[in-house]
Amino acid sequence: MNFCSHCGQGVRFAIPEGDDRPRYLCDACGAIHYQNPRIVAGTLPIRDGCVLLCRRAIAPRKGYWTLPAGYMENAETTLEAAERETLEEACAEVRIHDLYTLINLPHINQVYMIFRADLIGDFAPGPESLEVAMFAEDEIPWDELAFPTIERTLHHYFGDRHEAIFPLHISDIGRDDRERYFGSA
Amino acid sequence: MNFCSHCGQGVRFAIPEGDDRPRYLCDACGAIHYQNPRIVAGTLPIRDGCVLLCRRAIAPRKGYWTLPAGYMENAETTLEAAERETLEEACAEVRIHDLYTLINLPHINQVYMIFRADLIGDFAPGPESLEVAMFAEDEIPWDELAFPTIERTLHHYFGDRHEAIFPLHISDIGRDDRERYFGSA
Repeated sequence: MNFCSHCGQGVRFAIPEGDDRPRYLCDACGAIHYQNPRIVAGTLPIRDGCVLLCRRAIAPRKGYWTLPAGYMENAETTLEAAERETLEEACAEVRIHDLYTLINLPHINQVYMIFRADLIGDFAPGPESLEVAMFAEDEIPWDELAFPTIERTLHHYFGDRHEAIFPLHISDIGRDDRERYFGSA
Repeated sequence: MNFCSHCGQGVRFAIPEGDDRPRYLCDACGAIHYQNPRIVAGTLPIRDGCVLLCRRAIAPRKGYWTLPAGYMENAETTLEAAERETLEEACAEVRIHDLYTLINLPHINQVYMIFRADLIGDFAPGPESLEVAMFAEDEIPWDELAFPTIERTLHHYFGDRHEAIFPLHISDIGRDDRERYFGSA
């Protein structure tokens, strides 16, 4: 951020009076520009014991496999966001059961929320997917997954389904986990 | 948003090519400025069957009672945000059990995440609180609560504790619920 989005003058990065962390401040109009984490909402679509995955057609991690998920938009709920992303990326409808993984990524200011769901009807690649397919546990392309959040969610699922109990799993992914996927650059 | 925060030129609000909803667009530098919901993280601090509430010292809803909660910041996790807000507003430490209510407020682009917690040690009003106190169920100031999210979380808690089972409750609050608190202005 270089300029105030309200008045167009230059901003500086400093701690406002009464605050405890730096923000982008506009001395011309007095605006304080807060920046906050974003929610990535998605689903774990299941049918006949298989999981739907999408192969990404866009950066980052183009060509790698992911669960359908993306940034939650204004004016929608977390469930609506998860359903919308599933429809956009996999042309698939789902019946959502519950929130299954909540994963914090504080180094990139994201919070993943993946809902366990039943896949309903057909599927096909949307514009952001190269292909969409169903995978049994022994078919999951573990070395070709797009993000550590996806790997973790799938591990939880295949572990939990032996007992058929699917509690909410809350966890964090740090820089080290991420570097396995993206390198340290 | 009037000006591009990257280059300082004027923005327009229109649907970008390949997108399906309007964004703030900068024709000068090509930036697309996305806006996304914010997370409000907080706790439901319990001790000896009583709930800790804070009376707000600041707008909105100054003078009304709330659970300690506030906007999640960049570079922290949802649990860290909930603990930090509890420390800031009630000078209180908590031991978090689990995520208890997840409440979508799509008309104001917020997602509340309230964690059930044990209160540890002392408490006192922080700079954003006029007072902090413990309330038994029959002492809750139902007509003086700050936000519908707080009312709903407290109702869930006093309902669930008869069975001592505290599942995650996911729900939405719409414009109508909110107008009971804020009016239709």
